[in-house]
Amino acid sequence: MLIREFEINMRHALYIYPTVLFTRAVQSDDVSLRITHCGVCFADVVWTRNMHSDSIYPLVPGHEIAGVVTEVGADVKGFKVGDNVGVGTYVNSCQDCENCHSFLENYCPKSVLTFNRVDKNGTITKGGYSTHIVVPERYCFKIPDGYPLEKAAPLLCAGITVYTPMMRHNMNQPGKSLGVIGLGGLGHMAVKFGKAFGLKVTVFSTSESKRDEAINHLGADNFVISSDTQQMESLKSSLHFIVDTAAGDHPFDPYLSLLKIGGVMAIVGFPSEIKMHPASLNLGARTLSGSIVGGTKDIQAMVNFCAANKIYPEIEIIKMDYINEALQRLVNRDVKYRFVIDIQNSFQ
Amino acid sequence: MLIREFEINMRHALYIYPTVLFTRAVQSDDVSLRITHCGVCFADVVWTRNMHSDSIYPLVPGHEIAGVVTEVGADVKGFKVGDNVGVGTYVNSCQDCENCHSFLENYCPKSVLTFNRVDKNGTITKGGYSTHIVVPERYCFKIPDGYPLEKAAPLLCAGITVYTPMMRHNMNQPGKSLGVIGLGGLGHMAVKFGKAFGLKVTVFSTSESKRDEAINHLGADNFVISSDTQQMESLKSSLHFIVDTAAGDHPFDPYLSLLKIGGVMAIVGFPSEIKMHPASLNLGARTLSGSIVGGTKDIQAMVNFCAANKIYPEIEIIKMDYINEALQRLVNRDVKYRFVIDIQNSFQ
Repeated sequence: MLIREFEINMRHALYIYPTVLFTRAVQSDDVSLRITHCGVCFADVVWTRNMHSDSIYPLVPGHEIAGVVTEVGADVKGFKVGDNVGVGTYVNSCQDCENCHSFLENYCPKSVLTFNRVDKNGTITKGGYSTHIVVPERYCFKIPDGYPLEKAAPLLCAGITVYTPMMRHNMNQPGKSLGVIGLGGLGHMAVKFGKAFGLKVTVFSTSESKRDEAINHLGADNFVISSDTQQMESLKSSLHFIVDTAAGDHPFDPYLSLLKIGGVMAIVGFPSEIKMHPASLNLGARTLSGSIVGGTKDIQAMVNFCAANKIYPEIEIIKMDYINEALQRLVNRDVKYRFVIDIQNSFQ
Repeated sequence: MLIREFEINMRHALYIYPTVLFTRAVQSDDVSLRITHCGVCFADVVWTRNMHSDSIYPLVPGHEIAGVVTEVGADVKGFKVGDNVGVGTYVNSCQDCENCHSFLENYCPKSVLTFNRVDKNGTITKGGYSTHIVVPERYCFKIPDGYPLEKAAPLLCAGITVYTPMMRHNMNQPGKSLGVIGLGGLGHMAVKFGKAFGLKVTVFSTSESKRDEAINHLGADNFVISSDTQQMESLKSSLHFIVDTAAGDHPFDPYLSLLKIGGVMAIVGFPSEIKMHPASLNLGARTLSGSIVGGTKDIQAMVNFCAANKIYPEIEIIKMDYINEALQRLVNRDVKYRFVIDIQNSFQ
């Protein structure tokens, strides 16, 4: 029933309503974008299928948006018509709280997500599965010339989600050792950042089938099947940092034991619960840390870093009419490593 | 049976064997102490009652030791006969690993606890419920003149256990807000450090009976009954840091929600497990961090800080022959806030 409802609503959102209905008039601080590409995030599954029971239909998902500026408001200083621009997971915030002042707009209590949320003007936000979007300048990011727009899209959620905790915990220091749990859209970006930072990267996976990809394609230094207790034991107290991108449930104690004294495990996924023995933290001065996407300054820094270091997400480009299959393949973990919708060629 | 075994062994340890049997000849880097006082830690309950099934009898507990130097080895530079000295929870380490080099000897894989462990020379370590002890200089701490030895004893475990995470997470910055869960031997020291650092201190307790003590005696700014959801709700996202000293099981999500964005909850107790929803960490960039006691440099810094700022643990002084009652009262949480054995007047 949920699938049916989703399909009906997707049709409503994408095929019946003209997308221009979902954009608004350009205000003085707004940037108007012609969307060229939009990445497909698991959030799009969550809300099109109403998994949090708060979906507002018709619903237009998509929060990994790349496009070209078509118009700017009178007060916009950082963008001009023709610029390549990205938009991520939020499109507004109060701009006057402690978090906004610290450029942690992602934690502003009044931040407005890119889709399925009530914006400041009372309208429901509509995301990047659309031909156009209007967004205040503060929540737009410059995509440097030459960086492919289709590759830029996944940076805006998958990229920043793993970049932020890595930077926060000083994992950009060459020679340190990084563990990456899960090799999906987020995990494969963590491997790429890790290698760009000069880290020794170990990928943890439940499936032997990912070994070749991890080592030979993504450049990881080490690949470990997490159920192999001998392999796990051999890494005890060896890692400075672990990024846990796994969405599913898994034990935490075995991974925490791999951290050095003072090591940090950063959670960016949403398993149903986190459970551990206190000794896993206490006896090694270890830390479990959470975060969600990143603030505007960090997003721009991350995009610039990717451009400067030629870091590109691995993507499979699809057309808009493949989206239902793509979302189902995402649920089945059958994607290397991110779907990106070629918006500009889907509606010609 | 456990209690009986414990009592028999306590008698063995304390009354039948002359304590001199438990000390060793002074080596070149050793300091020999006449013990004047020893604090009573829950660890003493754990190992005298063989709760970890690894107790080696006869067992001499005690790892909050204060005393006076009676002899020093030829190579000892920092101590001389007559100095007031403290010894904490460990009396040896490898001195050659990454942790020892970083003065985190407490995390050295070969660190030797003060009692019930095999020392480098193959003997079983015996703790502070004794008239004398011989300890390498590195694990001895100078008690500044004028600081009462009976008050110094609890600093060596209870004090350093809460001081270390507070310093690690920059909680010595005036104006920040601190939550303290549990008001026992550790918790009351966290309140004292908090006030000395210029923090706004909120004590969380399950018992209304501690309100007067917390506010009027220890100087906490705020007292909250943790089961009072309205009070808890009013503190949402308000604290920079929480020190969780509770030994018993309790929920974690309600406390994590009280932390500001980027806030830290430090666990120093050993509940049976730690369990939380990932959103409690992710949606606030929050951190759960563990630690156990502290390294040698931090211990000396903490003792010096207490002397300079006139921070004194609240203690109940007992004689050695009261120890069985005291340990049972400790189990019953019937102590304000630390028992200290007056060793030097117990054997006259």
